Amino acid sequence: MSDYLTRERNLTLLTDYYEFTMINGYFHAGIQEKVAVFDVFFRRVPEDGGFAIFAGLQQVIEYINSLSFTEEDIDYFRRKGCFSEEFFDFLRNFKFCCDVWSIREGTPIFPNEPIITVRGPLQQVQMVETMLLVTFNFETLIATKASRLIRAAQGRTIVEFGSRRAQGYDGAMLGARAAYIAGCAGTACTISDRMMGVPASGTMAHSWVQAFESEYEAFKAYAETYPDNCCLLVDTYNVLKSGVPNAIRVFNEVVLPRGFRPKSIRLDSGDLAYLSKKARKMLDDAGFSDVKIMASNSLDEYIIRDLLLQGAALDSFGVGENLITSKNEPVFGGVYKLVAIENAKGELEPKIKLSETAEKITTPGFKELYRFYGRENGKALADYIVLAGEEVDDTKPLTIFDPKDVWKKKTLTNFRAEKLQVQVFSKGVQCYTSPSLEEIRAYCAAQMETLWDEVKRFEYPHTYYVDLSPKLWETKQRLMEEMNDQ
Amino acid sequence: MSDYLTRERNLTLLTDYYEFTMINGYFHAGIQEKVAVFDVFFRRVPEDGGFAIFAGLQQVIEYINSLSFTEEDIDYFRRKGCFSEEFFDFLRNFKFCCDVWSIREGTPIFPNEPIITVRGPLQQVQMVETMLLVTFNFETLIATKASRLIRAAQGRTIVEFGSRRAQGYDGAMLGARAAYIAGCAGTACTISDRMMGVPASGTMAHSWVQAFESEYEAFKAYAETYPDNCCLLVDTYNVLKSGVPNAIRVFNEVVLPRGFRPKSIRLDSGDLAYLSKKARKMLDDAGFSDVKIMASNSLDEYIIRDLLLQGAALDSFGVGENLITSKNEPVFGGVYKLVAIENAKGELEPKIKLSETAEKITTPGFKELYRFYGRENGKALADYIVLAGEEVDDTKPLTIFDPKDVWKKKTLTNFRAEKLQVQVFSKGVQCYTSPSLEEIRAYCAAQMETLWDEVKRFEYPHTYYVDLSPKLWETKQRLMEEMNDQ
Repeated sequence: MSDYLTRERNLTLLTDYYEFTMINGYFHAGIQEKVAVFDVFFRRVPEDGGFAIFAGLQQVIEYINSLSFTEEDIDYFRRKGCFSEEFFDFLRNFKFCCDVWSIREGTPIFPNEPIITVRGPLQQVQMVETMLLVTFNFETLIATKASRLIRAAQGRTIVEFGSRRAQGYDGAMLGARAAYIAGCAGTACTISDRMMGVPASGTMAHSWVQAFESEYEAFKAYAETYPDNCCLLVDTYNVLKSGVPNAIRVFNEVVLPRGFRPKSIRLDSGDLAYLSKKARKMLDDAGFSDVKIMASNSLDEYIIRDLLLQGAALDSFGVGENLITSKNEPVFGGVYKLVAIENAKGELEPKIKLSETAEKITTPGFKELYRFYGRENGKALADYIVLAGEEVDDTKPLTIFDPKDVWKKKTLTNFRAEKLQVQVFSKGVQCYTSPSLEEIRAYCAAQMETLWDEVKRFEYPHTYYVDLSPKLWETKQRLMEEMNDQ
Repeated sequence: MSDYLTRERNLTLLTDYYEFTMINGYFHAGIQEKVAVFDVFFRRVPEDGGFAIFAGLQQVIEYINSLSFTEEDIDYFRRKGCFSEEFFDFLRNFKFCCDVWSIREGTPIFPNEPIITVRGPLQQVQMVETMLLVTFNFETLIATKASRLIRAAQGRTIVEFGSRRAQGYDGAMLGARAAYIAGCAGTACTISDRMMGVPASGTMAHSWVQAFESEYEAFKAYAETYPDNCCLLVDTYNVLKSGVPNAIRVFNEVVLPRGFRPKSIRLDSGDLAYLSKKARKMLDDAGFSDVKIMASNSLDEYIIRDLLLQGAALDSFGVGENLITSKNEPVFGGVYKLVAIENAKGELEPKIKLSETAEKITTPGFKELYRFYGRENGKALADYIVLAGEEVDDTKPLTIFDPKDVWKKKTLTNFRAEKLQVQVFSKGVQCYTSPSLEEIRAYCAAQMETLWDEVKRFEYPHTYYVDLSPKLWETKQRLMEEMNDQ
């Protein structure tokens, strides 16, 4: 179940080519063993949401454990004519030896905080960039989108339906996984169930109805096959004139006599608010008030919210392309940046990357991340980034300040500080095991309870505090000034 | 090189669960052997473009050849408790026996024409839906987007740079493949080169520059490693004050003395029009007028077009997230619909699916697709869909008509008719071999020459004719009326 990625293929070369030209160059320059620290972080939540949901750590772990190069890989580089024998030896004997820290999967995360931190020799920390980013970016994108849908559905069920519109096979499979972590009830994608344990479900397509002489015949055949799980798609011809009446007829003629209750009907076109209310009444009048109504057809969180505002009688939603591609905003902009590097004295020295866009300036240094929770209500109050080793004392009041508008201060009392990153690899050896998918999902649901509703709002959510310790803030200011003087 | 998909994993279960509940139900109803025909087609070109570029056939072939179920797969279905032993036997002894026709990869395609057609027993044609669609939809999406970029660049080079922002690993790998088919010069993704032969390239990231004491030291070290292929990223600190001067210094101090010419500089931030013009002048003045300038940084076809309109001195473009996810419109809406099924008399009977939205009504029947080319200029004049077996005579004038506005007619003379679909599988046996990636790419470039500029325009492109034969048009009208009377 857990080695989806590595059992079946090796993705070591899913790496931007420039990582290899740089590593080869580090060897040439003799700086390949310099210790460096890189952070994965992001700058903006998609769709201007208040937070993202982190997913993908399990695949990052599998990837790191699978890192290796074959002789064919080395031949490939050799044919390029620009790599050295020293570089080939490095590939041949590659053994991951870095330290890795990461936030847990299912955690709500915020811009500009370190999500995954990698420390080790330059030749290695440089190499894992692409796979860390594609994994983090995609799974976090989909988990974040799914969380929006879950909130819009207000307790109703969301099922991931999007495989056919996914951006490739991993898009379908890992997208289903990420959506499940964030709270979807399951997926239509069989392999995600078989390989990763995301519950798969499904009933019939329009082609089933078309394959029989009539809609009634089609429904009857389905009910005879699945009397205990009878879910009928009622919109192939006309929902109210034929679909629902034929469903009711078959429920009475086939399902009830066999001692079962029918399960549901599904609407996949037309005005879902109007049709669901009418269908609900017809089902209720026929004694099937326990039969659920499911909707699909290009749904997203805004349509679901509107349907519910209009009193649509819908119990569950199948969401396809809008979820599996995060269609409104299909890119999660996570980056992987150098934040510290060993200097001539062998000390780890913070590094900054400037930009004309202030938001793009990195937070330098090897850091640690804390989340503060109110002791009374368990709510998340702020995240707090410190330089590694700085002590955070949650037994005394603590004044935090906005790193951009430093006059904006807040004093916290009666709070609990929790370190958000766990160490995942220690000198290359895995020292953290991912919880099961069910555990990650339950953890995510519990974490969501720690967020104020104001942060979970779609429109203009409250900006959650992500503050820097005074020492880190000063380090950043100093480096900005030094760099600007250069 | 060609078995990327199958050598490494089996994706048979990347199939919507409802395909399996339907197949199990077809067995229960005894109609599993009924011959049916399904078409893959699409209704709209992303970003309101005039055409799409078909890609993904190679992966469809690999998938079909790899179709198989293990005993573990069967155990998985058995645990679900709703499938029959007959269904398990079907899985256990699965052998693909359908006929498949497809347009060639790299062909410009248009809405509402059959791209891939599958004919065979219902139990089999139903099963391949999801994988055919995810493959067709994603690769065609990216090839279509890449084609837009290629056109915007007006002969300049586009390189695919997006792995880290791709939607999963296949998104990165197959996206690079699709982009290459449509004309990109290559990719930054190493594994796409190693496994599929998409040329990979890359030089340095900002982290390279940061890893050294100064930008000059970083450039010097790079030039010493790669004097024959010296490409420098000049925007880590200040492009015009330090980046370009340091590059010129290193070109003079390191590259020239070793007997090479430097290759290029790259700009990854700031105003690319302004900076490129200034940098061009500085390079020219220093005797490096042969050194190219590459740009990256959230580019898309509109930005590239604008930069060139403003006289930006740019020779090539690295395009990331906007290409690899087709960010503006990240979903290609291909569908797979039943168009004919065997009736009680054993004849193949056309089927239609109605919809309140006229554009969503399917074109019924087992069909063939022709493209008409002018004999004088080789330009594509129209596509023409007929019922299978209808003769198309291109030695005589032919009057075609718009299937929606039938009074719009056009008489073609001096044209050549070419069947666009080739048979790929005959009773389950592969009878077509994909050309090499280079051949597909060259074929795509040649096909692009057959399109009028009016069809290739970004804004309000000319709507290319996709017409129906009178016999097919009448069949469609008849079925629409019959269904509406039901």
